[in-house]
Amino acid sequence: MSDRAKTVTAAVIIIGDEILSGRTKDQNLGFLAEALNEVGVQLRECRMIADVEAEIVAAVNDLRGRFDYVFTTGGIGPTHDDITADSIGAAFGLKVDHNPEAVAVLEAHYAHTGAELNQARMRMARTPVGAALVENPVSKAPGFRVENVYVMAGIPAVCQAMFHSLKHELVGGDPVHSISIAVHLAEGTLANGLGALQEKYPDVSMGSYPFYRDGRFGASIVARSQTPDRLMAAANEIRQLMRDLNGEPIEEND
Amino acid sequence: MSDRAKTVTAAVIIIGDEILSGRTKDQNLGFLAEALNEVGVQLRECRMIADVEAEIVAAVNDLRGRFDYVFTTGGIGPTHDDITADSIGAAFGLKVDHNPEAVAVLEAHYAHTGAELNQARMRMARTPVGAALVENPVSKAPGFRVENVYVMAGIPAVCQAMFHSLKHELVGGDPVHSISIAVHLAEGTLANGLGALQEKYPDVSMGSYPFYRDGRFGASIVARSQTPDRLMAAANEIRQLMRDLNGEPIEEND
Repeated sequence: MSDRAKTVTAAVIIIGDEILSGRTKDQNLGFLAEALNEVGVQLRECRMIADVEAEIVAAVNDLRGRFDYVFTTGGIGPTHDDITADSIGAAFGLKVDHNPEAVAVLEAHYAHTGAELNQARMRMARTPVGAALVENPVSKAPGFRVENVYVMAGIPAVCQAMFHSLKHELVGGDPVHSISIAVHLAEGTLANGLGALQEKYPDVSMGSYPFYRDGRFGASIVARSQTPDRLMAAANEIRQLMRDLNGEPIEEND
Repeated sequence: MSDRAKTVTAAVIIIGDEILSGRTKDQNLGFLAEALNEVGVQLRECRMIADVEAEIVAAVNDLRGRFDYVFTTGGIGPTHDDITADSIGAAFGLKVDHNPEAVAVLEAHYAHTGAELNQARMRMARTPVGAALVENPVSKAPGFRVENVYVMAGIPAVCQAMFHSLKHELVGGDPVHSISIAVHLAEGTLANGLGALQEKYPDVSMGSYPFYRDGRFGASIVARSQTPDRLMAAANEIRQLMRDLNGEPIEEND
């Protein structure tokens, strides 16, 4: 037996009416899910909520106690609807004020670009008192961290850049490896055999994801584990199960 | 003054490890956001959670009290990881059993296709006792409703078909109309004027969504209201604000 796998978890909070209205498709969740797994952190929950302080406070306070890390995206710009910094302050009971280090970053940036560092832009230097900054190499206005909660921008290019700035701080566990195998068999045909394999491999999580493409039903079976040897063994048995049912396994991994 | 607008709200729970792992991009949220708004229901929160009963129970019980409707997608197939029906039963304290009406639907379907109605497939006829069924014209295995919680499939084609089967049951309020106007101006330039317009039009919600495309920053200003006249008036003032700041308004509506 290997040592017990170390599991580190995270939740993401995507803040913004735009996503909920359906006008904007979120592009940050998929990126964060994969980027977190690369550093050994498993995304376990995502919430998409409106730009309403009480909702942000409730989500942050629920999730920061249940997961090792929480990441928020959105609502840290200069406009009236950017209320994330104040909401994080409220969640932690911290005063929110201009962060001297962030002010210096913005002053240097706007001196360089020639744009006016007006009152609205100065909003982007506000953080809960004591927050650590997260560098923004794209557009300078920083994100920040309070305890285990990282606050990032919503623009995908900026969110991704901020994540790369902060990821060295994360203490990950063992990454989850996965193998995905599709087959043109109905889930109902696979279900009994797959259930038996799941019982045989309790340390390999097996998910069945039905699809409907080109008028044919099928299923992708995804096996996940923190133990590569067990994952390979389980995947071989899944392929054999498919063949026994007259299905042809289709490898779906990158 | 018109009568006060009637607001009806909803939350969506997307159940499945696949979305959280980043392997599968959710396709149901955008559809539901738009389809709900068409019948006068505003999507206010979305949660993406793992296939874990305690998580499903907690999310359902939190959201069903806070919103007029809750819609779940995923986890109602025949495999071992399809635990949504049991979890909804647990959330409501209801026994889960084979639903006679659902059994009849499956018996007729599999008699027609010739596939075996095995024990795994019979799982798809299980609902909390007393649940009302939601018709599935695509693949027959039905969704269901308990009180204000609708349980739908995760496959986008099936989810969409189920939503069309159930939408006549929803009692909507006044739909939200929106106008989106983009401009190649920095948010920090727009922010003061936009904040003043937001104060002038409290019944029009104004959001600013920065973008970064082709090396240029800009922002989409989205105005939303249940009162079309006020929305038009606010949008005209937003366009004028952009022109006053030497920006060219770009209409983004369909």
